[in-house]
Amino acid sequence: MEAYLITIGDEILIGQTINTNAGYIGEKLSGLQIKVAKDVVIPDNEEIIIREFDYGLKNYDIVLVTGGLGPTHDDMTRKCIVKYFETELVFNEGVFEEIKTFFAKRNRVITEVNKDQAFVPKIATVINNRRGTAPGTWIEKDGKIFISMPGVPHEMKGMMEDFVIPKLSEITRGKVKTILMDTLLTTGIPESVLYEKLGSLEELLDGGKIAFLPSQYGVKVRVTVEAEEEKEAKNKLSQIEQRIRSKVGRFIYGKGEEKLEGVIGRLLADRALTLATAESCTGGLISSRITDVSGSSKYFERGIVSYSNGAKVELLHVDEDTIAEHGAVSEEVCRQMAEGVRAVSGTDLGLAVTGIMGPTGESEHKPIGLVYIGVCDENNCTIREFHFGDDRILNKQRTSQAALDMLRRHVLGIPYDD
Amino acid sequence: MEAYLITIGDEILIGQTINTNAGYIGEKLSGLQIKVAKDVVIPDNEEIIIREFDYGLKNYDIVLVTGGLGPTHDDMTRKCIVKYFETELVFNEGVFEEIKTFFAKRNRVITEVNKDQAFVPKIATVINNRRGTAPGTWIEKDGKIFISMPGVPHEMKGMMEDFVIPKLSEITRGKVKTILMDTLLTTGIPESVLYEKLGSLEELLDGGKIAFLPSQYGVKVRVTVEAEEEKEAKNKLSQIEQRIRSKVGRFIYGKGEEKLEGVIGRLLADRALTLATAESCTGGLISSRITDVSGSSKYFERGIVSYSNGAKVELLHVDEDTIAEHGAVSEEVCRQMAEGVRAVSGTDLGLAVTGIMGPTGESEHKPIGLVYIGVCDENNCTIREFHFGDDRILNKQRTSQAALDMLRRHVLGIPYDD
Repeated sequence: MEAYLITIGDEILIGQTINTNAGYIGEKLSGLQIKVAKDVVIPDNEEIIIREFDYGLKNYDIVLVTGGLGPTHDDMTRKCIVKYFETELVFNEGVFEEIKTFFAKRNRVITEVNKDQAFVPKIATVINNRRGTAPGTWIEKDGKIFISMPGVPHEMKGMMEDFVIPKLSEITRGKVKTILMDTLLTTGIPESVLYEKLGSLEELLDGGKIAFLPSQYGVKVRVTVEAEEEKEAKNKLSQIEQRIRSKVGRFIYGKGEEKLEGVIGRLLADRALTLATAESCTGGLISSRITDVSGSSKYFERGIVSYSNGAKVELLHVDEDTIAEHGAVSEEVCRQMAEGVRAVSGTDLGLAVTGIMGPTGESEHKPIGLVYIGVCDENNCTIREFHFGDDRILNKQRTSQAALDMLRRHVLGIPYDD
Repeated sequence: MEAYLITIGDEILIGQTINTNAGYIGEKLSGLQIKVAKDVVIPDNEEIIIREFDYGLKNYDIVLVTGGLGPTHDDMTRKCIVKYFETELVFNEGVFEEIKTFFAKRNRVITEVNKDQAFVPKIATVINNRRGTAPGTWIEKDGKIFISMPGVPHEMKGMMEDFVIPKLSEITRGKVKTILMDTLLTTGIPESVLYEKLGSLEELLDGGKIAFLPSQYGVKVRVTVEAEEEKEAKNKLSQIEQRIRSKVGRFIYGKGEEKLEGVIGRLLADRALTLATAESCTGGLISSRITDVSGSSKYFERGIVSYSNGAKVELLHVDEDTIAEHGAVSEEVCRQMAEGVRAVSGTDLGLAVTGIMGPTGESEHKPIGLVYIGVCDENNCTIREFHFGDDRILNKQRTSQAALDMLRRHVLGIPYDD
């Protein structure tokens, strides 16, 4: 089965909103072994919207539309559905009750435009919206499936989880041959080095496919295999994964949708280790990532964002003379920050970063992108020097990733000799 | 002039990578008054890529392609360019020198696959890549423009800034009628309330267009006007903006691409005010956002991520009995955190948050999404209670935005009586 995703919204075409919905839906459909053949983003224009509905339904099995369902006048998907499917709007009591409940829970007064959202296309099955007011629609016609959902990401995700994924899963079950996919997440190794280290791809893959996806967080390695039987595909995939791990295993921190902060969380929780962080140049990004993980209060005790030198001295007991002699961005200060935050917090581990994120702040011997990261336990400290690029935000992200990876390697005892 | 954006990559279709490039390019082209008519994402498939090149060049003035130029075997854009334009690859000495310099600067050894990137389509003008190794290409043929750039966002952005935007700007200058657009950034007011407060859109807009773009950071209000002369368009736009501000001005924190942390930064720097933060539930996200701004060290002194109760007591001098009596998520603790962080840091302002981000941690009287935010100066403290949703990451983002907006209102003396 092939799907065509239509995202509606001028705001996406002109770059005011990033299209995260298509990615989320693509991932979920791939999981159901429905191939996303093409994504398209089109403007809030009735003629173009209807033309794309028609193109999609003529060429693919599933057309999935997001956007254009909000309460304001610029949203026109519902109107286009009525027109294209030659149906009409009918008042839906159930939807109206849900909208009322939604507002009551938030102590907000219902408005006229919200009431209007209880009118839905007669031909459609309603998809309830537990996180907002605009309902979604599911239409089956001439063997094709047409789905429309709001563009607000968490509303759309709620509908996917509650309704669309279970329903599509029912429909696809047993119909398709097995394609399995796995993604190994690496960090700390550039794409071309990774590629060379893997050697002959033909030997490695034995008929499978591989793709490399670089970003500031590292290179993702995606492996795809195809087979008649699920068991055979699983075996193939696991063999390829083992071969990859034997060559670059040290750089692999996780799989699939995992995040490094989640991996760290499990490592610390499993070992009952506690952590405190001291951040200068990342300004709290590392602790924010660590606390993105539900349950992080079990191992994360505190974070100090010692942006000023005064804060480094007062809160982390960094020696003033060391700052004067070596500068705040130095191996020595980084070490004292990591040791200091561990000592004042009474945690098992201390993690510290100091660096120059740019675009200003460089000096003769200290270029933009220079970063020191340190990790300490009771007995050992490791301090490493990094050279990142010249973009402030990317540098913060790269630094946070390198810091969390040093923590991972420290806890797992993986050395840096490769 | 109309543009067609083609993004190539299986990783985007299956949702492993979010397509941020299309948004960035859309924004830049809109700025040049080039209309992005349609975005499309297609797989790494030679036949489909060539079909899209052809469709784009037949229907639009500019075709802009990203992706598929990396050093590994799954990248096939260059091959498709050679085939579609019936040209050949030639070795480019200049590109090879740049690749060598790129590697030398990073103390890395050049690999065979990197050398291969110095071969470029003969028909093309090379777009240099100062942040990576794959060159871009610019081809003009039969009055149409074809541009190809790598998919790695910061490499693509470098090429856009250095080459593509200046060159397109030259081409479009003087050719088009004036369309101006402005975006007012609001926060703390739901889309439907905003819509109602604005009243009659016809009166408000006088022929202009308006769109509402909600997210967890607030609702963006985009206004578009069209006129023969630039001066006339500017006048129209500024009148509409004034009318909107007279109705909902308190909720507007900025314009266009501004971020709230940037607005805060200017407010504090202009007034020579200093700030310290105390975060519990946001885990450092607020200080990370504040320090995303270059020059933030002038006003941001430190941040305390007091995740444990112990850290709240030790570092912020929150009273243990207050925690025992009211709980860590309470108005009283929030007040002590804001006062405490201000006192220990010696700053003009203290900002504090404590809340329950979910998905666990609720209790009988304290649901998930409950947040207290406090801002204090020498004389006054304001503490407000918020009720957000049930998604941990969205709740962190909403809390950080509400906290920064309370800071903005505090510094500007804007009350909450509406």
